[in-house]
Amino acid sequence: MKINDPGTVAEVTAAFELYEQALMANEIDVLDGLFWQSELTVRIGPGQNLYGIDAIRAFRVNRPGGSPARDLLAVRVTTFGDDFATVNAEFQRAGAPRPGRQSQTWARMADGWRIVSAHISMLGEGH
Amino acid sequence: MKINDPGTVAEVTAAFELYEQALMANEIDVLDGLFWQSELTVRIGPGQNLYGIDAIRAFRVNRPGGSPARDLLAVRVTTFGDDFATVNAEFQRAGAPRPGRQSQTWARMADGWRIVSAHISMLGEGH
Repeated sequence: MKINDPGTVAEVTAAFELYEQALMANEIDVLDGLFWQSELTVRIGPGQNLYGIDAIRAFRVNRPGGSPARDLLAVRVTTFGDDFATVNAEFQRAGAPRPGRQSQTWARMADGWRIVSAHISMLGEGH
Repeated sequence: MKINDPGTVAEVTAAFELYEQALMANEIDVLDGLFWQSELTVRIGPGQNLYGIDAIRAFRVNRPGGSPARDLLAVRVTTFGDDFATVNAEFQRAGAPRPGRQSQTWARMADGWRIVSAHISMLGEGH
């Protein structure tokens, strides 16, 4: 399997950057559009497990002000073949006691790269 | 893109079940073998960010007794094409105050299905 083809990495990196900008600007339509429009899409957040795009959209609409402001500390993009990728990011929310971690799985659908699964959590203790 | 081809779902489900059995038995060689043998493999855990198979292996070796015993509460396997899949599981560790969440990204490598990225966290508060 072709790993980290430069052109594919560039595409996914651009999609991730678009997502990050929309997250900071709370552009819900852009965020929604970058998630796979499917009942199979999953977003596991610090305080909720969301299954399906409808549940994810409802969460965003009911999140006043959107995501807390944050700085990205590290971003790792890895692509597998032409159509799949993972993005693992570490971030620091303003005023938060611990850094956060965001893991996304992306797939190239007919209409472009989409997040099919996401998991966000704060660094804690334990194993 | 072909989503949830039954044969592919069955393969990934079997790989996931093998992983779960090995996790509960603390069979480190099996767990190691089911992770992609690459410096690009990622495991984000409740209390640590691990990059590369060497860091993941060191974590397992230094985890006395292995993973806490747990029950799976929900498992969702989704496959994309022939070679890529996500598995999202909710679990309850014995005696833990809150349930956990495990998200894995699997890819079919030359030697079989392997976990290329994993993120494990406990359900908390926040968004």
